[in-house]
Amino acid sequence: MRIKCTISYDGHLFFGYQVQPGQRTVQNELEKALKTLHKAKECIPVVSSGRTDSGVHAVGQTIHFDSTLSIPEAKWPYALNALLPDDIAVNKAEAVDDQFHARFFAKKKEYRYMIYKGRFPDVFKRYYAYHVPYELDMEKVKEASRYLVGTHDFTSFCTAKTEVKDKVRTIYELEWSETEEGLQMRIVGSGFLYNMVRIIVGTLLDVGTGKFYPDDIKKMIAAQNRDAAGRTAPAHGLYLWNVIYDN
Amino acid sequence: MRIKCTISYDGHLFFGYQVQPGQRTVQNELEKALKTLHKAKECIPVVSSGRTDSGVHAVGQTIHFDSTLSIPEAKWPYALNALLPDDIAVNKAEAVDDQFHARFFAKKKEYRYMIYKGRFPDVFKRYYAYHVPYELDMEKVKEASRYLVGTHDFTSFCTAKTEVKDKVRTIYELEWSETEEGLQMRIVGSGFLYNMVRIIVGTLLDVGTGKFYPDDIKKMIAAQNRDAAGRTAPAHGLYLWNVIYDN
Repeated sequence: MRIKCTISYDGHLFFGYQVQPGQRTVQNELEKALKTLHKAKECIPVVSSGRTDSGVHAVGQTIHFDSTLSIPEAKWPYALNALLPDDIAVNKAEAVDDQFHARFFAKKKEYRYMIYKGRFPDVFKRYYAYHVPYELDMEKVKEASRYLVGTHDFTSFCTAKTEVKDKVRTIYELEWSETEEGLQMRIVGSGFLYNMVRIIVGTLLDVGTGKFYPDDIKKMIAAQNRDAAGRTAPAHGLYLWNVIYDN
Repeated sequence: MRIKCTISYDGHLFFGYQVQPGQRTVQNELEKALKTLHKAKECIPVVSSGRTDSGVHAVGQTIHFDSTLSIPEAKWPYALNALLPDDIAVNKAEAVDDQFHARFFAKKKEYRYMIYKGRFPDVFKRYYAYHVPYELDMEKVKEASRYLVGTHDFTSFCTAKTEVKDKVRTIYELEWSETEEGLQMRIVGSGFLYNMVRIIVGTLLDVGTGKFYPDDIKKMIAAQNRDAAGRTAPAHGLYLWNVIYDN
């Protein structure tokens, strides 16, 4: 039986999502827990909606795996949480069709990026929000954001070393909101290239400080060259918030 | 010149506030930073409003120390934050009278205790709030809380091994409020005995689950015996929020 789970993790002690030899990764911990639960000799492979980088968090990552155990849906989170380290949690589990695939069936992804605006660093946010103590012109940031929405070739907003060929993606929504202590950027897209959200955030912050004009974004997109865009914002402000599937 | 600072720290990687040989403590890190800043051979002792236990956080701890440096008040946080690890931050500094003493001059202290009520553990709160997934009768918790307010001998709400003789303290305020994701207890008192806030929280939660009746609190206080009260709530939900001085 194929099981789909929604999981969250605190990225700060992980070397990213994907299995890497000798490193602590989210996938590794999930597969260890499943192996123990199934008393299996072989690895029970876990498929996610996509990897997340070292330090990046997840509030609503989606995974699937196949199980021979007959555990009721509502009991799966308890069974797995009992075996997982306390920086990963399974929040929901559903039995799904054997054709379901966490990556191929994902239609949209939502990421959020948290910025803390206080004058001094907040010790409680050091792993969870990017500290930006300087002034930002949010009208300009919002104007620049509008140029990113739509279907574009995002080569300029992708780490140069990536192997993906097709760099056309669609951004459906890109919103900024003020929170109690800072800012939150919410972005929904068809999919995201390697470091794409972090380069978008870094570039938009550069617009906010006046390094770029809002409509420079148009030229950056047209350039199809990573060097045309701004810096990469740090990983620890980024959250994979939700993966959206057709129902 | 005597400098008073308001500091915050994330307690989860500290072995408490007070210097202990071979352990990472807040006081140790502060004294290391001051020694470096002063290029001093000898330790520059830091006096706090009182120690906090291993795992306990501070939003507004107060310290003082004596310095020979002529750094303007507004620059002290920057000078110290540059040398401190990222789980301690100085948020405010003032030059004070040489008679000022962070412990002896403290009139009141405010602590807060954070409880997360979600069904599953929240990975982002595992060091910062106590996970209480079970039902609590908050009317009974609030009724019980009222019996604690006032001037009492709090021997029953203090770790038995303590050396303090006079266990009479005054609780001025004890309030519960609902937060977005759980509960917050706010307590203001003349001072707190060893583990006193955590034993108060643990006992009040035991009232909330029906293990004790609200007016059992009266008997517990009268007993002057640690065994009469409830359990000790874990350290990681506790925050030293504010230390109040006469102005």
